[in-house]
Amino acid sequence: MIKIAIVGYGNLGRGVERALKQNADMELVGVFSRRDPAAVQTDGASVYVLDELEAQKENIDVCILCGGSATDLPVQTPAITKNFNTIDSFDTHAKIPEHFANVDQAAKENQTVSIISTGWDPGLFSLNRLYAQSILPEGETYTFWGKGVSQGHSDALRRIDGVADAIQYTIPKSEVIEKLKAGEKMTLTTRDKHLRECFVVLEENADEAAIKEEIVTMPNYFDEYDTIVHFISAEELKRDHHAMPHGGTVLRTGTTHENTKQVIEYNLQLESNPEFTASVLVAYARACARLAAEKQFGAFTVLDIAPKYLSPVDDATLRKELL
Amino acid sequence: MIKIAIVGYGNLGRGVERALKQNADMELVGVFSRRDPAAVQTDGASVYVLDELEAQKENIDVCILCGGSATDLPVQTPAITKNFNTIDSFDTHAKIPEHFANVDQAAKENQTVSIISTGWDPGLFSLNRLYAQSILPEGETYTFWGKGVSQGHSDALRRIDGVADAIQYTIPKSEVIEKLKAGEKMTLTTRDKHLRECFVVLEENADEAAIKEEIVTMPNYFDEYDTIVHFISAEELKRDHHAMPHGGTVLRTGTTHENTKQVIEYNLQLESNPEFTASVLVAYARACARLAAEKQFGAFTVLDIAPKYLSPVDDATLRKELL
Repeated sequence: MIKIAIVGYGNLGRGVERALKQNADMELVGVFSRRDPAAVQTDGASVYVLDELEAQKENIDVCILCGGSATDLPVQTPAITKNFNTIDSFDTHAKIPEHFANVDQAAKENQTVSIISTGWDPGLFSLNRLYAQSILPEGETYTFWGKGVSQGHSDALRRIDGVADAIQYTIPKSEVIEKLKAGEKMTLTTRDKHLRECFVVLEENADEAAIKEEIVTMPNYFDEYDTIVHFISAEELKRDHHAMPHGGTVLRTGTTHENTKQVIEYNLQLESNPEFTASVLVAYARACARLAAEKQFGAFTVLDIAPKYLSPVDDATLRKELL
Repeated sequence: MIKIAIVGYGNLGRGVERALKQNADMELVGVFSRRDPAAVQTDGASVYVLDELEAQKENIDVCILCGGSATDLPVQTPAITKNFNTIDSFDTHAKIPEHFANVDQAAKENQTVSIISTGWDPGLFSLNRLYAQSILPEGETYTFWGKGVSQGHSDALRRIDGVADAIQYTIPKSEVIEKLKAGEKMTLTTRDKHLRECFVVLEENADEAAIKEEIVTMPNYFDEYDTIVHFISAEELKRDHHAMPHGGTVLRTGTTHENTKQVIEYNLQLESNPEFTASVLVAYARACARLAAEKQFGAFTVLDIAPKYLSPVDDATLRKELL
């Protein structure tokens, strides 16, 4: 059994707790949180204060770090990797090289393994970009996101005066994806690739027309997009928009000899973004435990890891059943 | 530069010759054929008799074996792996474990590397089945093929008395794929997944109705499918059906907590099956050369190989640009 600790318990941590129940070769030691354990409602897992983590070192094979990329993971991943094998889902794109270097140093100095930036983007989408561009060196790669909730854009809506609550969906333009797959050559602007759809609950006496104008002209967030704004009641928001769907498409269109068109497409359609991301983290936790058993110490990303390390099935059976 | 030899020059070998021109870190030493070199028309590559291969040992890093799975590769891959690093596209599913064992022994005894059963199915589809089932352990995997030419079914048509020439396309039922993606639970028969469409040129005075009946009732090949038969002229066959398109879909539909639906889909849409397969072989030839440089001797499949080995780009740049 691979013994897992969950560090941090928001939507992602809860998703990991659930994913572990689907993997018979893994066992959850407990959730480690900065909050008062009495205040953390799990699906059944024991809860400990984060300060107790190190005391349980002998009992844990891999820590799955479920904190945020903005402030938690840049500190936590290198620190916890000094004592444990770790996985994180660090997704601040521009800081990945720096994060990798910090974690790699901690892992090599302390003979541990860490797999960073795991999930679906970065993660599975990165993998697919790599496979596709290696196989079709002459071509273009496109990434489309959605339909899904953008937390950043939802927060931007909520900061507007007069807005009580809001949610924003990013929607890929499927007709553009179809044209690309059909081999059409296109120079795509931001507006061409995605729509933004907003569901907004107003405060009493708020000016609907003014708020709509403020949304669609908001720099960086909405001004470069076609944005649809719906005003709904608080009850409707709660009833119809509590799920956290997401997904997207990585598309590589390339040519082999002369103008022979070849298309590679990878699609995710997720009813729960945090539960799916958690499922990816759990599969890579298995890889992490194996790399540690092989004493391959250091930091890794999904690009470095042979696919077979993700599966509980032995190599000979994989060859027989999946090839 | 990675120095490549092509062994066998049919459609696949020609595809490899073309793919190598898109990869600046590779150099084609030549084509090695059992045929008289004067009779082999390449796109410019030098042609040698196969018996000369061993004499060029010092000049070749990887041999890409482009023979057939029925009789060539079971003999050629173990034999050539005694002297060279090799890649093949062996696709006789039931015999992969035996082929792997034979090639692994040759590679380990002679300190070479061989990557077998490379291409898209087996190959990229196998990879996607592995990733998807490791991430969503509770779910179902479906593979659909097409739209594409089935060589075996085309040959079966051509063996019918009164048929002058013919081609058969396998067509996946897209409405079934859409229902599966929408989360519908279905028990699928062979007939539910694919259509078979035949374009048949008759000999003079052949009995159209009788031949149609013979096709749609042919055991193993057509009787379990909905089969559409078109009778066309030799000119139409030549004009409209000379390309070798193929492709398909690997679909994993799974659930995470309770009944949260998650869908992973991988699609290929290929205008030339042999050129695409060749492009996959060439990317794995790069991996093969690297594994040999690291002295990781033995047989491998795509399931064993870290994605980064396929790319000419260095690891730090891959992390920066693709994660």
